[in-house]
Order: sequence, then C-alpha cells, then structure tokens
Amino acid sequence: MLVTLLAIARILPQGADVTLDDISRPSRLAGPGEGISDEELALAARNHGMPLEALRYDVTPPGLHYVLIHYDIPAVDAHHWRLRLGGQVRRRVELDLAMLQSLPARTVRVTMECAGNGRARLQPRPVSQPWLVEAVGTAEWTGAPLRDVLATAGLLPSAVEVVFTGADHGVERGVEQDYQRSLPVAEALDGDALLAYSMNGAPLPPQHGFPLRLVVPGWYGMAHVKWLVAIDAVDAAFTGFQHHAYRLRRDADDPGEPVTRIGPRALAIPPGMPDFMSRTRIVRPGLIMLEGRAWSGRAPVRRVEVSTNGGGTWASAVIEPAGDHRWAWRRWHHAWTATPGRHTIMARATTADGEVQPADQAWNRGGFANNAAQQIPVVCLAP
Amino acid sequence: MLVTLLAIARILPQGADVTLDDISRPSRLAGPGEGISDEELALAARNHGMPLEALRYDVTPPGLHYVLIHYDIPAVDAHHWRLRLGGQVRRRVELDLAMLQSLPARTVRVTMECAGNGRARLQPRPVSQPWLVEAVGTAEWTGAPLRDVLATAGLLPSAVEVVFTGADHGVERGVEQDYQRSLPVAEALDGDALLAYSMNGAPLPPQHGFPLRLVVPGWYGMAHVKWLVAIDAVDAAFTGFQHHAYRLRRDADDPGEPVTRIGPRALAIPPGMPDFMSRTRIVRPGLIMLEGRAWSGRAPVRRVEVSTNGGGTWASAVIEPAGDHRWAWRRWHHAWTATPGRHTIMARATTADGEVQPADQAWNRGGFANNAAQQIPVVCLAP
Repeated sequence: MLVTLLAIARILPQGADVTLDDISRPSRLAGPGEGISDEELALAARNHGMPLEALRYDVTPPGLHYVLIHYDIPAVDAHHWRLRLGGQVRRRVELDLAMLQSLPARTVRVTMECAGNGRARLQPRPVSQPWLVEAVGTAEWTGAPLRDVLATAGLLPSAVEVVFTGADHGVERGVEQDYQRSLPVAEALDGDALLAYSMNGAPLPPQHGFPLRLVVPGWYGMAHVKWLVAIDAVDAAFTGFQHHAYRLRRDADDPGEPVTRIGPRALAIPPGMPDFMSRTRIVRPGLIMLEGRAWSGRAPVRRVEVSTNGGGTWASAVIEPAGDHRWAWRRWHHAWTATPGRHTIMARATTADGEVQPADQAWNRGGFANNAAQQIPVVCLAP
Repeated sequence: MLVTLLAIARILPQGADVTLDDISRPSRLAGPGEGISDEELALAARNHGMPLEALRYDVTPPGLHYVLIHYDIPAVDAHHWRLRLGGQVRRRVELDLAMLQSLPARTVRVTMECAGNGRARLQPRPVSQPWLVEAVGTAEWTGAPLRDVLATAGLLPSAVEVVFTGADHGVERGVEQDYQRSLPVAEALDGDALLAYSMNGAPLPPQHGFPLRLVVPGWYGMAHVKWLVAIDAVDAAFTGFQHHAYRLRRDADDPGEPVTRIGPRALAIPPGMPDFMSRTRIVRPGLIMLEGRAWSGRAPVRRVEVSTNGGGTWASAVIEPAGDHRWAWRRWHHAWTATPGRHTIMARATTADGEVQPADQAWNRGGFANNAAQQIPVVCLAP
C-alpha cells in the first residue's frame, strides 16, 4: 500500500498543475489474477447489495434493498426543494413537493436491479462497483405518474426525449457532471413510470433519492434517477455522459447498444447455514425446500428451473402467481433431498418470449446485464 | 478464478467424507500485495458501512447505519418468539415482546462501531470483513434496561457473567454455533445496557436484530447481541467461541486481551465532490468548512484536531456540546482555505484521559480496534 502510494506520488503532479485527468482515469479491466483493488473495495464499502436471505420477503425491508450511488448522497432541504420542468414544453413549470403530492397518486411494486449486478464474476473483470449477485431489491414506490407531471408543462411535438437531472454531482472518467439520464418520449408517457416521493409508505430515505426520484419499472437501476431537480424535454437524442457509460460494448471503441430493460434472473436463498468466512453453505442430509425469487424487465418470467448438480440436470420449480404485481419478483420453490457430499445449486429463469438465463457470462466491457445463472456451493455433511 | 477453483477441487474431498474443517478454515493474514479476495468481497457485498457524508446526521437514517452479520439474518416470528432467562437465577422466566414492552422504557442515543473497523487498512491485512473506516452509525434505541429484565429472574450471588444468545446460527473457524457473547455481572447491571425492541422509533429492522437485541453503550458492536433468544447467568467466565475470537493478539498463540470499549475516533465528511472510481475528493480554491463527528466508548472526547497537510501540523476544531447524549458522537467543524494542489486531510480525537488516536496502526492479528487517524486525499483544482 505504502509502496503503491509512493509509486503514484512519483507519477502524478503534486503542485498547482493537477487536473481532473490526473485523478479520474479511463475505465480498465483487471489483469489476470488481480484481486479486488482498493478502489473497488471503497465502492463496495459504501454501496451494498441485499443479503440473499432477504429474498424471503415480498417487499424488501428498509435498509436491505441494494443501493448504488455514483457520487455522494446530496443533502436536500425539502422545504426549499423544487422540481423544474423545461425545454420543449408549452410552459415552464416549477413544482414543490406538496404540488406533486396533490396529483393523483399511484403505488407500484417494483423489483429493481443494478445494471452492474454480476460484474465481479466476469472474466476479465471490468474495474468498477464489484457486484456479485446481490444488487437487487423490491419496494413499493408511491408517487405521481410521470405522464401526469409532464402534462402540467405540456410536451411540444418537437420533444423526442426527456432528460432527468439529479442533485448528485461528481466527476466520472474525467467529466464533471450532475447525474443525468434520458428516456424516449414514448417510454416517458408509458403509464408505469412514476415520480416517487414515498418508498414502502414512508418518505424516501436519503440514499434512495429524497425527496423525489424517477421509477421506471422494468429498467435497470441507472434509469431511476434519484434526487430529481429538473426534467427537460429535448428535441434530439440525449448524448450526456451516462448515455455513453451504460452501453454493452465489446471494447472501448465499440459504440455498443444502450442498457435498458432488466434481463431475466432467478436467485435462490442459499440453503442451510453459512460458514462465516467462505460463505459456503452447509446442510445436513434430508429434504430441503429450496426457494427464491425470479424477475424480468422484458417479457414476464414463465418458468424457473433448478439444478442441484451444477447444471448437469434441471427440474422445474413451482412459481407463485404474480398477482397484481407485473414489475415485482415472483416467489418460487423446489424440494431437494440432500445427500452427503458437495453440491452446486443453480437456478435459472425463462421468459414468455423464450429468453433463458445463460449458464456462461455474456461479457461486455462495462460489466453490465450479466445474468449468468447463480451458482451456490453447498456441502452436505454426513449424518 | 477457474484456476483457483480447480486447485481447491484437487485438495478438498468431493464425496461423503467432507467435514467442517474442509470448508471452514483457520484465520489467516493476506500475503504481501494480495488484493481483496473473493471471500472478503462476498462479506463486503452483504455487510455495509455508512457512507461518510451521512456523518452530517445526528441520528443515522434507516439503512445507512453500518451492519455486520456473522451468519444469516434469521427469520423470527415475533408472535411465537420468547426470551428465556435461566442459569444462576432465582426463577427461570420466559418473556414475550408485550411483557418486555410493559416494563419502563428507556431511549439511549448510541454511536456503535464494528470492532473490525479499519481492518482493511492494516499491513499485513487480517482476512475477514474488509472494513475501511465506515463501520459506524448512531441510532436511538428504545427498550427495557437490562438490569430491570434481569430483576424479573433475580441473579443468584453465584452469577459472575451473563451470557446472551442470538438466533443467528452458523459455522466459524470450524465451530458450529449460535452467536453468543457475555458481559460481567457488574457491566450487565450498569444502568445503560438495554434490551432494545425499537430503533429510531420503529421496530428493529431484521438486520439490526428484530425483535430484540442487546445494546451496551460504549462497547464495540460484537457485544450488542442481535436476535436475542436467551440470557443465562453463569458461575464461571464464559469461554465460548466469540470470547476467544474478539481478542487483541500479536499472533495465533497469544492469549491476548479481550476487545471491549470503543477507542476514540474522529471522522470527517470528505469535502467537495468525489471522483466516481477513485473516490478522490475534488475541491476548488477558497474557504471550506470541514466537519465531522467524534466519539469514544472510553473517556469522553475532549479535543478534536484537524490536519490539512497529512499530519505535518494540527489545529483544534470546534466541538459542539454532547448535550444529554453521553454515548453519541459529537459534531465538530474547522475552517480550511484550500489552495491548488494535493492535500491530505486528517482528523484525530483525544479523550479526557489523554488518549489520542494514533497516526499509525496498532496492529493485531484479528484486525480489531484500529483507530489510526483517517486520511482523506483531496485535490484542489486551479481556479
């Protein structure tokens, strides 16, 4: 560590001539066998996943839902806070929280997943927030439908996208920015996108976007802009930093495809008990009810399959009905008779369109949308 | 990764003869230059620290308080849950939640810190939960004073310690166990220890010990047993696993001293804005109000000092009064005029007993109680 710091000190300028490019470096891939770096650890210590035993809850309790924050959690004073609507609109509008709360409210149960979930399992590993598989959570978001809020300003026919600006501010790959993302007008006017001021019946916690965030059911987390301060209708496709950052690229020069909707995924609650350090699961022989959740932001999940031999054979799990919750995960279960020895539990989801979770990684340079099937090593002890 | 798994597969038994010792290994130190391992990353993805900008809050909002869970979060049904008191007592007692809530309630604001906070900064690094400095949080805990609950059973004169058993169950260093810790009788009868059923005015979240946890103000987190199911008075010092695990040892053979009360620490809110990946702080020239919190579970904090040149010189910060909150952190602030170039911000606390946070690590094999002063690299850009 000391050696590393000294090495950096020799390379980097010490004086008044230091620039953003000296401290905010291009993205990179980890080298062969390279352990998780200090930078990745610093992100992992701030942001957190959902402990997988919390898959037992229909709605994730406060504090267990995953969190990914690009910069800092901003300190927002709700009394002085305003949402500004502008750009290609008939009239500029400024709304306070009370005005938003006076619009007809809607509550949607949404399973949200970080686009980078599964990144740390990729080979080679893109160096960024090092998620394993826990970057997920389900909440009931209450707010005003986005289309109703947009109607207060009136989109002009020239509007092709809507840009959302958050209050979080920082530097990324050399670019100083507010966090910004856009949605196509058609998606923004879709009935399910919400400007949420409440999570599970309470005001938004600071880390989830207090006082207002965008919720776009079925999309990866990067679309759900937190700490919203401005919405601007624009007459050309948004080309801001995050539009380029969240793309599926083979290499740095590949323009790639944008990351949008959540791929299908099934996760199991790790059975038995853990070893503290290795997190290996330990069970005893006999009947074990495997259970978990499955979701998709594309076509709905139609089937969940479970393997207890590392993908050698698969059996269909029982899936519970979705009920009224199109955008929330569904519970599934499957009985397994454990016998002494080592086992690898896997689960995979298939959508109504026939999209199946892959057994292997679909590698891309940003480490996005890696929905390779979960693998849980389990040891069954002799009786 | 694949290579590692294959290497392990050659060493470890595959069949029915697998034992706990094959999967639950002795503690170890990371080798020189060894990056964070997959095992440490898996712990970092589950457990989480408090993003340091949350030092701005007197009481940490839900979900931002640090969490460290040894095994799994147990699923406890509050309706069937009971707390059993036994051992060296006049009468065995079983209490349900309503009975505990009918005892006179007390609320205490407590800053809690993991004993392993700072572990990942140690050289060599003990391989366990890889905390940097964020394993802290402050909450208002409401519950029944421990001494009042013990009085319902009546401690016998033979009782020397009180053992607390949680519902979380797992394997650690080859030992299957419920999480258990003890307190000396004198400490247990101290007026500030609490059996808490409420955190910040709401029922305990699952990850913080629902429905009941022990709170021992001033002690590191390992003492505050979560998901309590049993309290047993014993006539000899408790020698369970966690008693041996949480000790300050020079090497594996050193009996060491037990980890008890929280050492003094000051932390600053990282100023300016972050670079996403390196977390380097970026400011612009001019007056910056540095602020943070300081706490101690030993003698109270008497002084906080700030250095803006990596410890070359120190200046006293202004500390706000503790008010009625003896066991909570205190806010401090210090004005700094930033000039272009690289700076290292540090803060350190001194107690009324004259204990000062060290500039260097006080290394021990478990990586406990490392309260070396925080260092924040800051880059001030030219105007």
